[in-house]
Amino acid sequence: MSEPLPKTNPGRFFEDFNLGETIVHATPRTVTSGDVSLYTASYGSRFAVQSSDVFAKQVGYQAAPVDDLLVFHIVFGKTVPDISLNAVANLGYADGRFLKPVFPGDTLSTTSEVIGLKQTSAGDSGIVYVRSIGRNQHGQIVLSYARWVLVRKRHPGTPAHAEQVPELAKAVLAEELGEGCPSIELAAYDDALAGSRFRWGDYAVGERIDHIDGMSVEEAEHQIATRLYQNTAKVHFDAYGARDTRFGKRLIYGGHVISLARALSFNGLGNAFHIAAINGGRHVAPLFAGDTVYAWSEVIATAELPGRNDVGALRLRLVATKNLPCNEYPLKLGDQYAVGVVLDFDYWALVPR
Amino acid sequence: MSEPLPKTNPGRFFEDFNLGETIVHATPRTVTSGDVSLYTASYGSRFAVQSSDVFAKQVGYQAAPVDDLLVFHIVFGKTVPDISLNAVANLGYADGRFLKPVFPGDTLSTTSEVIGLKQTSAGDSGIVYVRSIGRNQHGQIVLSYARWVLVRKRHPGTPAHAEQVPELAKAVLAEELGEGCPSIELAAYDDALAGSRFRWGDYAVGERIDHIDGMSVEEAEHQIATRLYQNTAKVHFDAYGARDTRFGKRLIYGGHVISLARALSFNGLGNAFHIAAINGGRHVAPLFAGDTVYAWSEVIATAELPGRNDVGALRLRLVATKNLPCNEYPLKLGDQYAVGVVLDFDYWALVPR
Amino acid sequence: MSEPLPKTNPGRFFEDFNLGETIVHATPRTVTSGDVSLYTASYGSRFAVQSSDVFAKQVGYQAAPVDDLLVFHIVFGKTVPDISLNAVANLGYADGRFLKPVFPGDTLSTTSEVIGLKQTSAGDSGIVYVRSIGRNQHGQIVLSYARWVLVRKRHPGTPAHAEQVPELAKAVLAEELGEGCPSIELAAYDDALAGSRFRWGDYAVGERIDHIDGMSVEEAEHQIATRLYQNTAKVHFDAYGARDTRFGKRLIYGGHVISLARALSFNGLGNAFHIAAINGGRHVAPLFAGDTVYAWSEVIATAELPGRNDVGALRLRLVATKNLPCNEYPLKLGDQYAVGVVLDFDYWALVPR
Repeated sequence: MSEPLPKTNPGRFFEDFNLGETIVHATPRTVTSGDVSLYTASYGSRFAVQSSDVFAKQVGYQAAPVDDLLVFHIVFGKTVPDISLNAVANLGYADGRFLKPVFPGDTLSTTSEVIGLKQTSAGDSGIVYVRSIGRNQHGQIVLSYARWVLVRKRHPGTPAHAEQVPELAKAVLAEELGEGCPSIELAAYDDALAGSRFRWGDYAVGERIDHIDGMSVEEAEHQIATRLYQNTAKVHFDAYGARDTRFGKRLIYGGHVISLARALSFNGLGNAFHIAAINGGRHVAPLFAGDTVYAWSEVIATAELPGRNDVGALRLRLVATKNLPCNEYPLKLGDQYAVGVVLDFDYWALVPR
Repeated sequence: MSEPLPKTNPGRFFEDFNLGETIVHATPRTVTSGDVSLYTASYGSRFAVQSSDVFAKQVGYQAAPVDDLLVFHIVFGKTVPDISLNAVANLGYADGRFLKPVFPGDTLSTTSEVIGLKQTSAGDSGIVYVRSIGRNQHGQIVLSYARWVLVRKRHPGTPAHAEQVPELAKAVLAEELGEGCPSIELAAYDDALAGSRFRWGDYAVGERIDHIDGMSVEEAEHQIATRLYQNTAKVHFDAYGARDTRFGKRLIYGGHVISLARALSFNGLGNAFHIAAINGGRHVAPLFAGDTVYAWSEVIATAELPGRNDVGALRLRLVATKNLPCNEYPLKLGDQYAVGVVLDFDYWALVPR
Repeated sequence: MSEPLPKTNPGRFFEDFNLGETIVHATPRTVTSGDVSLYTASYGSRFAVQSSDVFAKQVGYQAAPVDDLLVFHIVFGKTVPDISLNAVANLGYADGRFLKPVFPGDTLSTTSEVIGLKQTSAGDSGIVYVRSIGRNQHGQIVLSYARWVLVRKRHPGTPAHAEQVPELAKAVLAEELGEGCPSIELAAYDDALAGSRFRWGDYAVGERIDHIDGMSVEEAEHQIATRLYQNTAKVHFDAYGARDTRFGKRLIYGGHVISLARALSFNGLGNAFHIAAINGGRHVAPLFAGDTVYAWSEVIATAELPGRNDVGALRLRLVATKNLPCNEYPLKLGDQYAVGVVLDFDYWALVPR
């Protein structure tokens, strides 16, 4: 008998990525109201559109849509076994667009196209750029985003078989926003039920908002959420294996931080119900269980949407910190991020006008 | 450019409440089977009516109703940002009535009427009495209860602009019970499947029941449950901010304790499937993560329901303790609650006859 | 007034079991998509058939079936108050058969027949053998398994009123497998979406697979999962009461370990989507919160299913360890299980051909 083939997934190394190839990721996922409940239980999100079928229908949705970031996490989770199992670092996101609302019952699957490759000067690893696309059961794109990660080479000396760095916009253009949001019936949009009397026009560029509240994170919580997304990155789950790593303990999935900060931002941005686009995001420092997350936002830009009078867009910088309240809007000291800052996230939110 | 208005919710202070005003609370919520699963996972509740659609339909419900306390927590959670963000203490509940069953798919929203105001003798705070009402998507009242909280004044010296203390019944009258419970088909009520052979007539006034089992509580558990209810009271979530408070750590939401004790009470009260009314409740001492909750019950009264032969009512005192088994029914030493008692809760349950 | 009868369930002692009697267990349970989400969140399972309604329908199911082990845990949980409340030890399982898929919306209930009784030589306890049967709302058997537990006597001296040790097969016969799995449409079974290119024929008897990944377990996690199953065994929940026990802390439900190991086994057995039978299982050592679980599998046998060309069966030994990576396939040292091994589980999985 010949030796059977190894059955486990060793993950791809830098040499295994080919420019232009498309990777079909495993485990399509039917999103359910159970996932929505766990999302609420994980972050305490309070946006009325996502919380109430009645509210959502009144303003123009067919039902309460699934939180945009839950969609992101599920679409993202599928890419881990193929893209980032041997990743050294998750370097960035760009050009993320939420293009269709997702509802309980929809089934999501993900593919990724390799859009760039660049080896590091040391030559033992390289940056892999992918565009990941989440589709629903009708084949419609619900989410598209670019991401780049630093991936080890299998054999440090191997030269890259192609190099190309894609051009990625610093921000999604305002005129491209809004596809993921139906026409909103403003007359039916109830500010009291939504929890904020501030509409799009009430926000000014440069305005900063301390979201005040803090949320502490437990190991069980981030593990439960990250498993819900079927994200298998072992750094989040293996405390025994983590003993010998740089931090000596489990790291919290960066997306968990984004969702915590977004949920906290309800206090001040209660009508910013839809994330239309992710312009970029940087995980400035790791978060660990036991830490308490705070957040603040800055309005970077405001934009009208072409041909739409129902909603406008706010470009927001969402900053999350750990064990550091945000009443002084901590961000940078000179060129460096201030100690305590963990997330610098740039996105477009839609707000009723 | 004029300075933009502050966007965050500072919470209401005592001066901000007006006698007779009605507050519409934010974030209507569609309750789903996902919420029900999380409720079961949080407390381990085993009442057959709430657990099985088949059982529920056989005895007269259209489907398995949502646990009454899950309804309470969701309705209550909505009031926190408007009523108790600046509360010093949650003083009491009275006259709580569960008036319609809630099913997965129903959407709940809450309003509160200010029914009383009374400043403290120190003058720096006052008691706010509200009647909170939870309604379903048809506008039907599913839950109504009175609650009073001690709220700080914004400016300690400000005199109250009105004072009135509402009269609240010590207990809901037996003849007012039962609206939230359909007619129960006794022939179809299977004691073996329900888990108890004891019917209404088997309980005697004065009878005490030690529910035996203990349930330890972890930080992740109470945070997950309390976020599920979209309850934002920061004392439950912010470990960093709690360092400088009296207890130095997070407090567990009082409703979490009620639900734990109620779930434990299944062992001895397996057929007491419906909470018809909450007569009163007192959180005697705080519960912290790491504590183990035990519970016992006393039958305070029994009552027939006018015109109904299917179910009778038991008025129950449900006492919860921490790190103190209840085989000796701990309650008070003289006028004081005994050390270890955390909850003294008075409610009416319905039991098949 | 006569003294009311004690209302709590003291659990059955050895003398309370009668050979041949059938026990109807309490609390029928409607399984929902909320339970499925919590199961995913608890273990991170990634089998495509259970994750995606679309995938499941394409290959021949009416919808995504509930994970077989979730069915097992729910059916098992109901037996605890009647069978094992006074159990000293859970000794083994045999002849477990998954006979019908379960879908969200199905209602499960459990009965157990006492199929064997044997007192121990010390005479203070005895082994109770039961066959537990889980049925859906149509009365169809979805799961049947034998289990034996060591149960204390109420009065150590009482002689057993009957003794009989049932004969239980060491393994379910291959020709009896497959009832719980519809005919699989191989042309529609997409390996890329399933996450593995290895089909039944690619596995060889004797092959060993290290599943690589590790999963740490927190108190909150196993408590949440075990409560979801309405399993009330107090050793899993009562930290205060556990102080005086042998281990001084809470024990994790053995089924939690099985589900963790099964979820880890996806990496190497991604197409082994259905557990057709449980041949046996042994909890070699207890697992505690804070431990990290690893797993490996050995192919013990392969079998065709009579009259079926769609799927074949693999008989797998699934070994779980704690704080011990499995690259060296730890199992036994001489006659003894190696330190670190916690589970030795023998089951039949079905894999597309």
